[in-house]
Amino acid sequence: MTNTLSRPTTDFTTLPTPRTEEEWLERARLVRGLLAADAAARDAAGATPYAEVALLKDAGLVTLLGPVEHGGGGQEWPTAYRVIREVAAGDGSIGQLLGYHLLWFWAARLVGTPEQIAQVEAEATRQRWFFGGAVNPRDADVVIRDEGDEIVYTGRKSFSTGSKVSDVTVLEGVVEDTDTHVFAIVPSDQPAITFHDDWDNVGQRLTESGSVTLDGVRVPWEAAAGFRDKVFTPRTYNTMNVPVIQLVFVAFYLGIARGALEEAAQYTRGSTRAWLHSGLERAVDEPYVIDTYGDLTAKLWAVEALADAVAAEALPIHRDPDALTERARGEHEVRVAAVKARATDVALEVTSRVFEVLGARATTSTLAFDRFWRNVRTHTLHDPVAYKRREVGRHVLVDELPTPTWYS
Amino acid sequence: MTNTLSRPTTDFTTLPTPRTEEEWLERARLVRGLLAADAAARDAAGATPYAEVALLKDAGLVTLLGPVEHGGGGQEWPTAYRVIREVAAGDGSIGQLLGYHLLWFWAARLVGTPEQIAQVEAEATRQRWFFGGAVNPRDADVVIRDEGDEIVYTGRKSFSTGSKVSDVTVLEGVVEDTDTHVFAIVPSDQPAITFHDDWDNVGQRLTESGSVTLDGVRVPWEAAAGFRDKVFTPRTYNTMNVPVIQLVFVAFYLGIARGALEEAAQYTRGSTRAWLHSGLERAVDEPYVIDTYGDLTAKLWAVEALADAVAAEALPIHRDPDALTERARGEHEVRVAAVKARATDVALEVTSRVFEVLGARATTSTLAFDRFWRNVRTHTLHDPVAYKRREVGRHVLVDELPTPTWYS
Amino acid sequence: MTNTLSRPTTDFTTLPTPRTEEEWLERARLVRGLLAADAAARDAAGATPYAEVALLKDAGLVTLLGPVEHGGGGQEWPTAYRVIREVAAGDGSIGQLLGYHLLWFWAARLVGTPEQIAQVEAEATRQRWFFGGAVNPRDADVVIRDEGDEIVYTGRKSFSTGSKVSDVTVLEGVVEDTDTHVFAIVPSDQPAITFHDDWDNVGQRLTESGSVTLDGVRVPWEAAAGFRDKVFTPRTYNTMNVPVIQLVFVAFYLGIARGALEEAAQYTRGSTRAWLHSGLERAVDEPYVIDTYGDLTAKLWAVEALADAVAAEALPIHRDPDALTERARGEHEVRVAAVKARATDVALEVTSRVFEVLGARATTSTLAFDRFWRNVRTHTLHDPVAYKRREVGRHVLVDELPTPTWYS
Amino acid sequence: MTNTLSRPTTDFTTLPTPRTEEEWLERARLVRGLLAADAAARDAAGATPYAEVALLKDAGLVTLLGPVEHGGGGQEWPTAYRVIREVAAGDGSIGQLLGYHLLWFWAARLVGTPEQIAQVEAEATRQRWFFGGAVNPRDADVVIRDEGDEIVYTGRKSFSTGSKVSDVTVLEGVVEDTDTHVFAIVPSDQPAITFHDDWDNVGQRLTESGSVTLDGVRVPWEAAAGFRDKVFTPRTYNTMNVPVIQLVFVAFYLGIARGALEEAAQYTRGSTRAWLHSGLERAVDEPYVIDTYGDLTAKLWAVEALADAVAAEALPIHRDPDALTERARGEHEVRVAAVKARATDVALEVTSRVFEVLGARATTSTLAFDRFWRNVRTHTLHDPVAYKRREVGRHVLVDELPTPTWYS
Repeated sequence: MTNTLSRPTTDFTTLPTPRTEEEWLERARLVRGLLAADAAARDAAGATPYAEVALLKDAGLVTLLGPVEHGGGGQEWPTAYRVIREVAAGDGSIGQLLGYHLLWFWAARLVGTPEQIAQVEAEATRQRWFFGGAVNPRDADVVIRDEGDEIVYTGRKSFSTGSKVSDVTVLEGVVEDTDTHVFAIVPSDQPAITFHDDWDNVGQRLTESGSVTLDGVRVPWEAAAGFRDKVFTPRTYNTMNVPVIQLVFVAFYLGIARGALEEAAQYTRGSTRAWLHSGLERAVDEPYVIDTYGDLTAKLWAVEALADAVAAEALPIHRDPDALTERARGEHEVRVAAVKARATDVALEVTSRVFEVLGARATTSTLAFDRFWRNVRTHTLHDPVAYKRREVGRHVLVDELPTPTWYS
Repeated sequence: MTNTLSRPTTDFTTLPTPRTEEEWLERARLVRGLLAADAAARDAAGATPYAEVALLKDAGLVTLLGPVEHGGGGQEWPTAYRVIREVAAGDGSIGQLLGYHLLWFWAARLVGTPEQIAQVEAEATRQRWFFGGAVNPRDADVVIRDEGDEIVYTGRKSFSTGSKVSDVTVLEGVVEDTDTHVFAIVPSDQPAITFHDDWDNVGQRLTESGSVTLDGVRVPWEAAAGFRDKVFTPRTYNTMNVPVIQLVFVAFYLGIARGALEEAAQYTRGSTRAWLHSGLERAVDEPYVIDTYGDLTAKLWAVEALADAVAAEALPIHRDPDALTERARGEHEVRVAAVKARATDVALEVTSRVFEVLGARATTSTLAFDRFWRNVRTHTLHDPVAYKRREVGRHVLVDELPTPTWYS
Repeated sequence: MTNTLSRPTTDFTTLPTPRTEEEWLERARLVRGLLAADAAARDAAGATPYAEVALLKDAGLVTLLGPVEHGGGGQEWPTAYRVIREVAAGDGSIGQLLGYHLLWFWAARLVGTPEQIAQVEAEATRQRWFFGGAVNPRDADVVIRDEGDEIVYTGRKSFSTGSKVSDVTVLEGVVEDTDTHVFAIVPSDQPAITFHDDWDNVGQRLTESGSVTLDGVRVPWEAAAGFRDKVFTPRTYNTMNVPVIQLVFVAFYLGIARGALEEAAQYTRGSTRAWLHSGLERAVDEPYVIDTYGDLTAKLWAVEALADAVAAEALPIHRDPDALTERARGEHEVRVAAVKARATDVALEVTSRVFEVLGARATTSTLAFDRFWRNVRTHTLHDPVAYKRREVGRHVLVDELPTPTWYS
Repeated sequence: MTNTLSRPTTDFTTLPTPRTEEEWLERARLVRGLLAADAAARDAAGATPYAEVALLKDAGLVTLLGPVEHGGGGQEWPTAYRVIREVAAGDGSIGQLLGYHLLWFWAARLVGTPEQIAQVEAEATRQRWFFGGAVNPRDADVVIRDEGDEIVYTGRKSFSTGSKVSDVTVLEGVVEDTDTHVFAIVPSDQPAITFHDDWDNVGQRLTESGSVTLDGVRVPWEAAAGFRDKVFTPRTYNTMNVPVIQLVFVAFYLGIARGALEEAAQYTRGSTRAWLHSGLERAVDEPYVIDTYGDLTAKLWAVEALADAVAAEALPIHRDPDALTERARGEHEVRVAAVKARATDVALEVTSRVFEVLGARATTSTLAFDRFWRNVRTHTLHDPVAYKRREVGRHVLVDELPTPTWYS
């Protein structure tokens, strides 16, 4: 891995380890600043984010959820979402990479046996693993052969966010001739895994979300997450994957929107000219400029507040996973669906309308102010937002709880 | 006062006194149900809400903020806002009356001397005073004569919400030939005060917000709020009146919106027919119906979350009033302005769009579904929402703090 | 019929008969002014509009589409829609009554035999009939008995707009034990027809849209519209009823919106005060006021332009009815659906948002500025606007043409 | 000039010359198809559009407004706007280039003497000149020296759309020590003109809108547009430049929006999958997909109708330029401002929201569906849309007419 950072750097080893949420947010803001410095240039270059992953490791963010005793941050999801927001405000792609990483890091807790959880968390924290995933659930084309002590993954996944720049990858596949899904964590750098570098999309360009081929990736059965004697025992808590991943999405949408709004404000203050015929000296005194910032800020604050509230609502669930009921899970998922719907709308509105308060010269490619909208626009299509509104509407109307799937 | 309740009643003396926030919200929901039963009919009749004020007293809501030792609820503003929301969901006018009452009840704490605060809270709680106010700041036409031991209020206020149905009224005026404003609490039922019953507006029809004439209302100097030896010592905390009253407004806007949405959902479930050519049996299965409920619910939840967050942010201020700085006050006011702006937009959208999921027959006057929109539309004009967005925009752009006035 | 006009009157017999579209619009604007003078008061009173129907007759508007040789205006639908807009700008209910009247007047041309058309148009024009209708298609409960030379209507219609104040009513029913619908024009004032005066809805209050009972209304077979020897010959042109009635709806929605906007502008100019802390003298100099009027006006102009364009597109159809193809009809209906959807959204937005530029005092019941929104809100529920968007969407996506029903 | 067309070509010499508006639109649709075939690829490459300008010439579109007797199309502005829309639907940049070209072609008529007009139109038509312009009015840094028989332009313009690929360029500058602006048409390919190729912006990437340096461009006084004996006689008609150029802008915004919507519909039909959990086979049957297409189409149709109406309103002005009054010009400009405001909003909404009905895979860079939004977003900042709403609002409120400037 080469470090191509042209931006200012920070020697994190000289900084005290954050302890509180506020200190972690301060740390995340520091990372945000470093990322923002060349985010536009890296977006244009489509640069593979080795250096940025290293930055996340150096700053301690990859082990934010890891046990304190192994050197982790010991934080919970609400803090993690806010950290993702800050990082995404600096660079939407890196915010997504951090978010997905934290999800996979935590996923052991979701499906693993107690022993697996302990082991994965210890090792991943101590060694500062960066996680990728090859788990796109709309593809059903990774097949697992059971070879006695081992299982062997073969097939192709269309999307495998972050794997290329990761230490370990979470694989998912279906055991031949069964409906049994098996997850496992494997080293990313091995001959049986080929990354195709075919993620060339209009937004979130640096997420290395391209396809991957698995050609006989071998995993011992004891590493099959949650399995004992080849049998998986499902819990209601397993179904928390969707609420958490969707709140991760929300976190980087909101971060990107805030990044757009704050970079725009800085530009309006420093570079935007008052309109020729306005009779005003400064753009910041234009009524329409003030009104637009006021409106967009208020809208963003409302969704941030909802995201925070919904994250807090899940804390009791995460602290006592086995007490989770289907109703509690369902009602939480409905709240998550609502915040996803609002975050989508507001992030799109903010990232498109900021241009109106920047002026024509801000459309230069060097500034790449369009990347905020492109980033939000691209990832918010992950699954149709109409189905989020649908979850909420059905619940309000007929008390329906969403059936747990990969998307609800 | 005659009790004209045609609705179901509750004997609150048989119920245990609420202790926790959740118990108070439960109590408020009970009141909401009683009010909702005939809210449409009372709106049409323009009925003076004597019985409804009695209900608020009986239920203990008027002393929600009062000291526990005097029989009050001992709650803080975040709970009070949520209680107002519930009541407003049942009847927007009564929600406003309760909100204004709680403001005036609490206002002693804002401007009074410690002795006055103790005395007013004790007496108001023990006697379950209902407060009105004659304090519209855009009128400058109540003049105070200083007659040595007493001050005497004479003049007219265009709006005096709730006074007519209140026990005591908060007066405000300016001492002759000075800039000195003086507040005082006086009995509402006295010959020197005349209510003109001229509030006949399209919304919030039952708030008794008509004009009032003061013809020599006498108040001893020692009752002049915050004055010692005829001198008032201003504190930064005095300027918290606007953030609190604006959050009170937000509380009943959100309550009205929620009332509209929930009554609509009930109607859609029970009475709306699927569209003739939909091929569906039930309106609740219409995609556009589901989508509309999902969208409106998500929007409302976001503003509720922001309102809750902003209310929580003020707790440290209210708990340590003397520590309040101008910056802290100003930053809080900006947050309040944002939630006011969002609550206005969303409450208007919800109360207008619900009709689309009710169907044509729901426009009958008997149901009076239009009252929700009329109520929101009327009160949200209290001060221009554009200036709220302006406060936020100026803060974001140039770090401006709002100058404390009666509206910011 | 008593004339209760408290407003200024005009002796139309002293005015020259309009000849051109522009002269007819001038005439309509004159009527608009007369109606606007007491529209708020009549709305509050729920006054049965005998005098207003008389006004429409005196002004010549009821015979706008009638043949010139019989004293009619000889105008076509595009002019009629614009005339309806003007009248609705003065009073939404009267605009609807005129619109429905013109539809029924013209409906002879839609379904009648050539002889019937000639006869109805001559008689209706010479005698200045005002038409009502008892044709709500969601009810299927008017049954026709065939008694040889006569048919006899018996049953009930939930809505019969205008019939109570009309000279003649268009009836619709189904011949017993068949699927055959028969329309006929009958005198409204006859013992076999009972109006129930049960239209008490939140908007369009003066349209006399209550239910009606038919108790053996007798009609000779030769008056059964379009029948020869008891057999009806359908034409594609028959299906133009929906495009025309929907454009009539659009006409009065747009008229109401324009009435709201223009009355608001007048009030803003004359009565709205600049905001206390604006530093401005006049409300018309407030940036947010200017912006709101600019935005609402631009939106309204766009829908007016679409309504005009779509009306013009139908002219060749109306001038050569027998050449109409299913494709041409279907493509026109899709355009109509689009304008209905836009008119609905924009009329609701205009009539709700104008309050923001009026100020709090404009909520007084005397002004009744809420009636514009109530009027639009009520009638736009006639059939779900979501199904209009659906027609357009299906056409754009899969070239589907709407199946002609009573609503598409 | 090299022709790098990888797309299908058409030999226009084999086609009959269009005569009617409909035939010209047919021609424009043919060009649109050719452009659309590789628009995404050329956008990515930032290819200088020599071949595309050649295409516009071959297709006869550059002489659309030219006199028929010299081989021109003899069309008027309403047709030209529609032709620009079609071309912009295929490629937004080329639509802008054609629009600006037609403006400069026509500008002779705006400011020239009768002799100049006749000469320029004849020559430009016969020789199929493509026009560029170096006229950005916010720069005041091109100075003209009067050297007796000649004037000499020296200075720099920040933007000179199309000049690099043009035959002739319209220059504008100010005579030294005066306020006198002088326009002239000069050959683009001359040593005294240097193009800096510095247009690298996020949208309308192929418009060659970079800066230009003039280093002593010599023009005989008789070519100074509208001057006789070095004196310019202003007419009210001169001020029509802004209404026309703004309607040109509207034309390509609407064209881009329509291009986005129609390409999206094609993709939805052919490639978008129904949602996994929808229970549907085809994306075109998804209610939310249908609703979105219906909504966006209806919105676009409304603005198109307004654009058409406003264009038609200007026809009498263009046909009798000397009769133009300040009031008529001002009222027309207000209408233009309204359509600009609506076109901006709707084109942005369409180009952003289409993604919701495409699905995640449509974000691939190969398809470049983001270019529609980037194109609209970039050019709609030309001058602040808030000032368009302002023009409309001021007119409606206080009957103000916009002061003619370069933007109003």
